[in-house]
Amino acid sequence: MDTTEFRRRGKEMVDLIADYLENIEQRTVYPDVEPGYLRSLIPEEAPEDPDTYEDVVKDIERVIMPGVTHWHSPYFYAYFPTANSFPAMLADMLSGAIGCIGFSWAASPACTELETVMMDWLGKMLKLPEDFIAGTHGQGGGVIQGTASEATLVALLAARCRAVRMILASDPQRPETGITSKLVAYSSDQFCATLGTTPSCAFDHITELGPICNAEKIWMHIDAAYAGSSFICPEFRPLLNGIEFADSFNFNAHKWLLVNFDCSTMWVKKRSDLIGAFKMDPLYLKHDHQESGRYFCTDNSLFRSLKMWFVFRMYGLKGLQDYIRKHVELAKEFESLVRADQRFEISADVVLGLVCFRLKGSNEVNETLLKRINNGRKIHLVPCLLSGQFVLRFALCARTTESRHIREAWRLITQLAEEVMQELPH
Amino acid sequence: MDTTEFRRRGKEMVDLIADYLENIEQRTVYPDVEPGYLRSLIPEEAPEDPDTYEDVVKDIERVIMPGVTHWHSPYFYAYFPTANSFPAMLADMLSGAIGCIGFSWAASPACTELETVMMDWLGKMLKLPEDFIAGTHGQGGGVIQGTASEATLVALLAARCRAVRMILASDPQRPETGITSKLVAYSSDQFCATLGTTPSCAFDHITELGPICNAEKIWMHIDAAYAGSSFICPEFRPLLNGIEFADSFNFNAHKWLLVNFDCSTMWVKKRSDLIGAFKMDPLYLKHDHQESGRYFCTDNSLFRSLKMWFVFRMYGLKGLQDYIRKHVELAKEFESLVRADQRFEISADVVLGLVCFRLKGSNEVNETLLKRINNGRKIHLVPCLLSGQFVLRFALCARTTESRHIREAWRLITQLAEEVMQELPH
Repeated sequence: MDTTEFRRRGKEMVDLIADYLENIEQRTVYPDVEPGYLRSLIPEEAPEDPDTYEDVVKDIERVIMPGVTHWHSPYFYAYFPTANSFPAMLADMLSGAIGCIGFSWAASPACTELETVMMDWLGKMLKLPEDFIAGTHGQGGGVIQGTASEATLVALLAARCRAVRMILASDPQRPETGITSKLVAYSSDQFCATLGTTPSCAFDHITELGPICNAEKIWMHIDAAYAGSSFICPEFRPLLNGIEFADSFNFNAHKWLLVNFDCSTMWVKKRSDLIGAFKMDPLYLKHDHQESGRYFCTDNSLFRSLKMWFVFRMYGLKGLQDYIRKHVELAKEFESLVRADQRFEISADVVLGLVCFRLKGSNEVNETLLKRINNGRKIHLVPCLLSGQFVLRFALCARTTESRHIREAWRLITQLAEEVMQELPH
Repeated sequence: MDTTEFRRRGKEMVDLIADYLENIEQRTVYPDVEPGYLRSLIPEEAPEDPDTYEDVVKDIERVIMPGVTHWHSPYFYAYFPTANSFPAMLADMLSGAIGCIGFSWAASPACTELETVMMDWLGKMLKLPEDFIAGTHGQGGGVIQGTASEATLVALLAARCRAVRMILASDPQRPETGITSKLVAYSSDQFCATLGTTPSCAFDHITELGPICNAEKIWMHIDAAYAGSSFICPEFRPLLNGIEFADSFNFNAHKWLLVNFDCSTMWVKKRSDLIGAFKMDPLYLKHDHQESGRYFCTDNSLFRSLKMWFVFRMYGLKGLQDYIRKHVELAKEFESLVRADQRFEISADVVLGLVCFRLKGSNEVNETLLKRINNGRKIHLVPCLLSGQFVLRFALCARTTESRHIREAWRLITQLAEEVMQELPH
């Protein structure tokens, strides 16, 4: 395929994508296939000679779509959202074409520099303490990771490195191997200090944890994977109070901030903690500006900051705030529907865009209800377990979800609940 | 931006990308900017209200391009290649629009299943032992990781988990904490068993290492990050002999197999080793087909197998082999040019698409030569250190590099070498 054909095929793909997203509501949100469905639909080996592009495109509907869970359908309420917006998709197209790898400043200065500045932009939107902002003179700053798990791993390694250094500074004779096997990491059953847990969007008391960590010189990492995006709204920013005690902080802009996956945004107060933990300097990565020290990447990555730039500029801060608020309002609307029905109960505080609810009754009746809902394939939800209770999670996910979808979902849920309650003791 | 505007902007972006790649040769391959150049070109904060799309697009040339190292210029010979092809870009567009996360089979069955089948296709192209192929009944199989480092980490964790289980099986009373601090990982200064090291594309003798690992029940992980793609050609496949001793094997299809970043392909003989090391099963990830056990993902990821599918079908095996062979031939051509000039020497066997060479003389004269080359910004190379010698690496990288570019590069290098030799004692 040469550039002339790419111009044609690329434009066809733009239309295919626009058609897909425009009509996604008509598709079955949760696919009706059995494990192994795909293997029999395609050859066992790659072709020796090229297939035609027409055949490849035809197979999108024949092979792929029947097995897709449509995360961007307004009837998708499972897990947490994953972001999808047109400005981010346009930026990703450009990022793919530039196709640079940002493992050092010299490997593509624009890539590393835009990332640092975009992380400052976002940090300022969140009103992070000045310590976390790189600016032109700061010691802190942000870096994009692939996932919140990756950010947690990076924080753990940096914390380990700092702890070893602190111990060695006070006792230089001590052998390093003896130290690392005695280090301790504290966590809850959600792991680190968390703002907005996955099961129920619960919040740790970081204003209580933070001072203890600081006094004991324990590295505090805060994970706000889902909830973090909401902190750009002044009314939700108090949820982040206590951030000043943290050494590192992370949330997934690729969840709820309209920046397509992957874009897990992580800040540290001291860039040197990260650089120290990961420093590796083979000759082939050295460059003339090695010691400028202003920029850091801990990751092999594409030009991921381009999509932050496109999204922040095309929505503006107000547009992003409106988007968060709309989802929270829709969650509140759904909560009201649940509360107005005496057969149901709300299982956890509705703080942001997640509603945890259940039928008053046994776990069995709720499990059966959820199975009915998902087998209907019109809407898609997943459960969680809260204090031993089987709970249904209704998460606002798609960019295009409106009040009518919420009401339609509730109509379906109550209809199936009636069926289930007639069949089962509750 | 609604779908109507996206149709328009998306098509404009396709043309922008096609223009960029069509004319990339005219750009300065290595940017002429100082650290910090970008910050002053854009505002310090995100806009409150949206910018216009026209302004965003204008800033691509004003802000971004001056700081881009053009990895896909035919004059880029630094590091190793990173893949870039039109079929992969088309697939990535689709992947972004579907925007599903493949953290379980149910989260998007097509995503998990196509990945397993594409890894079989690629495994068969490489003629991997049957143990590594999932098929419908196999115990092994492949999974896509983000980078070779990630694959190495995954292999380490799986190896650790298997070692602990083996020890506990022979001595169930032993406390687990005592075990892990005594585990040992063996590596060279390139880390694990490597086929095609980064500095010089050297090869470990895995037919010697393998039997020792197997006899001692040591997990053997083989990293062929760059070289792996070449094993689809029968003439290079012998470089992979000994793979039968390995527990896990990884290479970066996103380097040299025309599949855009990220696509680091990893195979294991026993999927249960990976699943065991990473098993996590909160209720919200459970689904009806949990125990089918045919599919596994160790990663949060997008629909990365789509780009493998598009590339394998649009090139066919023969097209991919031609592509590898063309780069190797160009490397051989460059090697001949170096060998024909008595002032230069070849510093390592030229096996694939990398030529390590230097001026006969001091490290200083070679360092100066490299600096002159890169400051000229017409071609871009990075160095390596081989047995204390400063060596220049000439890596075939871009899809569009032809013989004329190689000859032009050599003309430039010899011209600068003459200048340097006149100025410096050598």
